Amino acid sequence: MIIMKTLSPTRIAVLGYGNIGKAIEQAANMSGDMNLVGIFHHNELELIKKEEVDVVLLGTPSRDVPHMAKQLLSKGICTVDSFDIHTQISALHKELNEIAKTNNAVSVISAGWDPGSDSVVRCLMQALMPQGITYTNFGPGRSMGHTVAARSIEGVKDALSMTIPLGTGIHRRMVYVQLEKGADFEAVKSTILKDDYFAHDETHVIQVDDVQTLNNVAHGVNLVRNGVSGTTHNQRMEMNMTINNPALTGQIMVASARAARRMSDKQCYGCYTMIEIPPIDLLEGDKDTLIKQLV
Amino acid sequence: MIIMKTLSPTRIAVLGYGNIGKAIEQAANMSGDMNLVGIFHHNELELIKKEEVDVVLLGTPSRDVPHMAKQLLSKGICTVDSFDIHTQISALHKELNEIAKTNNAVSVISAGWDPGSDSVVRCLMQALMPQGITYTNFGPGRSMGHTVAARSIEGVKDALSMTIPLGTGIHRRMVYVQLEKGADFEAVKSTILKDDYFAHDETHVIQVDDVQTLNNVAHGVNLVRNGVSGTTHNQRMEMNMTINNPALTGQIMVASARAARRMSDKQCYGCYTMIEIPPIDLLEGDKDTLIKQLV
Repeated sequence: MIIMKTLSPTRIAVLGYGNIGKAIEQAANMSGDMNLVGIFHHNELELIKKEEVDVVLLGTPSRDVPHMAKQLLSKGICTVDSFDIHTQISALHKELNEIAKTNNAVSVISAGWDPGSDSVVRCLMQALMPQGITYTNFGPGRSMGHTVAARSIEGVKDALSMTIPLGTGIHRRMVYVQLEKGADFEAVKSTILKDDYFAHDETHVIQVDDVQTLNNVAHGVNLVRNGVSGTTHNQRMEMNMTINNPALTGQIMVASARAARRMSDKQCYGCYTMIEIPPIDLLEGDKDTLIKQLV
Repeated sequence: MIIMKTLSPTRIAVLGYGNIGKAIEQAANMSGDMNLVGIFHHNELELIKKEEVDVVLLGTPSRDVPHMAKQLLSKGICTVDSFDIHTQISALHKELNEIAKTNNAVSVISAGWDPGSDSVVRCLMQALMPQGITYTNFGPGRSMGHTVAARSIEGVKDALSMTIPLGTGIHRRMVYVQLEKGADFEAVKSTILKDDYFAHDETHVIQVDDVQTLNNVAHGVNLVRNGVSGTTHNQRMEMNMTINNPALTGQIMVASARAARRMSDKQCYGCYTMIEIPPIDLLEGDKDTLIKQLV
């Protein structure tokens, strides 16, 4: 397939070239309105010039997002990230909003699938049923946080923690560990079960010879809300996804770069989460055609 | 439950007091930021005054929406409707956009569940998987268009046409007919099966004594897309709803009145479909709190 680029494509760059950076590259190359002008390693931020780039997509770990986004926005360059530390999103939003407004730039933050497109679905569910409970059930899929926690335990050479949804927001952890030579499995298992990352969930620890053979970037989510529209109870909406995790994240970041460009063109400078963006701005193509096709 | 109203509630009125009008009334009364200042019958449009009302919600049939919305917008009054004639939405959008801009008003059109919230989900699915096929599978639930078509056939006293989803956008029609005295069931059945509304789908015609005993405003939908994120195939997202149809429509219209008020406050005058509205603007409450809860 040969992608025909539009006359005024958005010039984007990737900062950080791991799984997410590579997925962004693929999604950008498949888009007709994106021109990928540069791929920068995480330590090459100072090479990115405002004259050459409209939007920088951060493929770096969440902990590096705040300071990198601040530096880029200070130069007047728009940014997109998939910052996923839920408890810190509101603070990041406020901080980047100030800097983006001051420097006539746009930042779209937490633009992955959760936070990100799942946030949009949760928002829509609440609009349709203002009263009720929404459950987010993750998996089956790898949890990076829990995997890193398991790997850091003494005697563990490599680990993989899978998140299994049990419904109503309750999750099982399946932890596969590959031991260092001479390590004691029962001791490792006991340490994992007592770790704060695992102590609150049903957790199973399983010894394997080679964690690498289990590796799989598949993930999934089930979002469900049973609630009340007006005075009518028992309204129900459910969303299910099964996906390749980095591929989806990269695609959503490219869609959000499109929205950032459009916000910037309209001089609507500032910081946005995905629930603050008109969904049509995520899509390539002419507005009237999209309305005809999708509404 | 006693709803505490905010200090500056949106003053809304309902025009048309059928199933949808009553559902709007219920949703408005359950909202803390809406003040329902008037309920008008469909022939009382001229009684609605700009000084007294911020947004009028049209509970009238779709065919009456264009001329009523035009009259209200011409007076500078914002409107919300659930216009559902898919092929005419783009034209209505253009026409109302002009009038709304000229008169410093906002119109949110096609704000039901389909078109409406389903459109937002279709939009999101396409953002996540730009390449692929989305299927919209309606039902089980009553189709108003098909019910009216069946009712208009000679020999039919009353009818109900149920839409049953068969997947991949294919639907079965279950048509329940109550005959006029002396009418011939086989003749009625044959006429229905040849009617353009039914000729293209699998259709079953069933004779019953009393259609009213089958009546039920439950409906449902299944939206599914299997597509490609970047270069990764077999990404899958699915949405299911089972709902009380007028209750959901009324709730969505009230949420859209909130968005109309916010657009109007920001002087972003014009006509919007739901895919052009930031989802957060549909929700009651403080923006930062909503971001903390939902993102």
